[in-house]
Amino acid sequence: MQWQKVTLVGVGLLGGSLGLALKQRKLAHRVDGFVRRPESVQECQKLGVVDAAHLDVVAAVRDADLIVFCTPIAQMRSLAERMRSHVAAGAALTDVGSVKGSVVNELEPLFPGFVGSHPMAGSEKTGPAAATADLFREAVCVITPTARSNPNSVDSVEELWRSVGAITRRLSPEAHDELVSRSSHLPHLLAAQLVNYVLGPDRPEDQELLCANGFRDTTRIASGSPEMWRDIALTNREHITRELTEFIDALQQVRAALEKGDSRQIEQFFAEAKKRRDAWRGQRGASPE
Amino acid sequence: MQWQKVTLVGVGLLGGSLGLALKQRKLAHRVDGFVRRPESVQECQKLGVVDAAHLDVVAAVRDADLIVFCTPIAQMRSLAERMRSHVAAGAALTDVGSVKGSVVNELEPLFPGFVGSHPMAGSEKTGPAAATADLFREAVCVITPTARSNPNSVDSVEELWRSVGAITRRLSPEAHDELVSRSSHLPHLLAAQLVNYVLGPDRPEDQELLCANGFRDTTRIASGSPEMWRDIALTNREHITRELTEFIDALQQVRAALEKGDSRQIEQFFAEAKKRRDAWRGQRGASPE
Repeated sequence: MQWQKVTLVGVGLLGGSLGLALKQRKLAHRVDGFVRRPESVQECQKLGVVDAAHLDVVAAVRDADLIVFCTPIAQMRSLAERMRSHVAAGAALTDVGSVKGSVVNELEPLFPGFVGSHPMAGSEKTGPAAATADLFREAVCVITPTARSNPNSVDSVEELWRSVGAITRRLSPEAHDELVSRSSHLPHLLAAQLVNYVLGPDRPEDQELLCANGFRDTTRIASGSPEMWRDIALTNREHITRELTEFIDALQQVRAALEKGDSRQIEQFFAEAKKRRDAWRGQRGASPE
Repeated sequence: MQWQKVTLVGVGLLGGSLGLALKQRKLAHRVDGFVRRPESVQECQKLGVVDAAHLDVVAAVRDADLIVFCTPIAQMRSLAERMRSHVAAGAALTDVGSVKGSVVNELEPLFPGFVGSHPMAGSEKTGPAAATADLFREAVCVITPTARSNPNSVDSVEELWRSVGAITRRLSPEAHDELVSRSSHLPHLLAAQLVNYVLGPDRPEDQELLCANGFRDTTRIASGSPEMWRDIALTNREHITRELTEFIDALQQVRAALEKGDSRQIEQFFAEAKKRRDAWRGQRGASPE
């Protein structure tokens, strides 16, 4: 047992999966959860993702030695303020938000034991019913300590993610936000725009029929939660708009090569993409798709 | 048995899968194939994708009542001219090319029995070793007859695809090329550009580590054959450049909404995408992902 009591503030896909993983691996004596809706209390207990679910965040966090914010980013600050004076001395706190700069800026001053983290796992499914104990297995989890972080809390948070199977890496909140604006937020915007563009209301009836498996996979992430992605896009918008500007410039160059009918350049464009993607997949030890 | 002899001109992923499907479903007395490389003759016979593989296209097509071009688009014309005077009277011919206007323009004048088709099935894998008998099951296959098409050949080609499990639709070559420039070619360009952009040579070392499952799926098709996609992009470049121009305009609007921090507009953008994609998936009777 690594922890006496772990509290999940928010028990959706990520919180629920963390609860299942902690319980299955016997990493905590008990796992409590805070939920907002009364019907979620029974659902969470029935699913076995926590030992007890509470509607009162103060009761949920009492005596916890590890607290993990698993709510949407926009709800973290007000919950943090409500629970602030009830957190045990020495408790480690973290969160699972997809953007780190703003969250760390908001929560670090409130809790000496806070360290941000971002487990890069998820799905376009939401809610505790979609939770699985191995969601974090072999997922990359970024820990974002700052100069103000308590070294024990950093170690404790890193240990949390390692103990549920994640591969951890420490980065500054700023470096994290720049890297994910490219690798995650830009792809989400493109996937959503692709759906809106291709399946727009004025398209011919046969347009939908001619969308096949390539379209399905390229746009899978566009079925994610609109509220969550609104918050991510707004919270990280400085990085994202910069990436979007550069990406559009690069697309203009591809269009120019196509207009010229530049066969060599077009082949090189596709060949580079294949080479880089296959190399990335190979580094991950990925099996062929 | 629907056909006496079917000849596959080119035996890669698509030709090989068609051969397997025809043989497993006992739709032809024999299936012959034309291949370019001597080592492919044995490979195709060992894999059982054809009854006999030939290096001579004239021998391959002799006495066939159905001929299917399964080579890259760029090779079809010269093969067609070589075999032209050896095709049996009354034979139906088709192809599996991803762009139809140019192929139909080139092959229709050479063969009275020619009708274009495009089975929307495939994979980023290539070659007969990746072939499967059910590649076309529930795939959409577009048949592109013109005013000059022989009605018997149109029926015969449609019957071919239905008999291997595809859902067929008749469209003009021009309508087909416009629709797939949006649903297939634009996504391919975006996926390739996304890889080239995100995994570019100047990115920090941790960039690759922070590419997770969303990036993997969004870019899957960027691992496809560069030569095939070069040919598709060039052959359909008028439609593609037009779509790319419109798509870039739409992306500029998303960027402007982000710059303004327009929360309502950003949420609506993601909500529309989710709604349209989920509706499209639902129409296909898709199981949840």
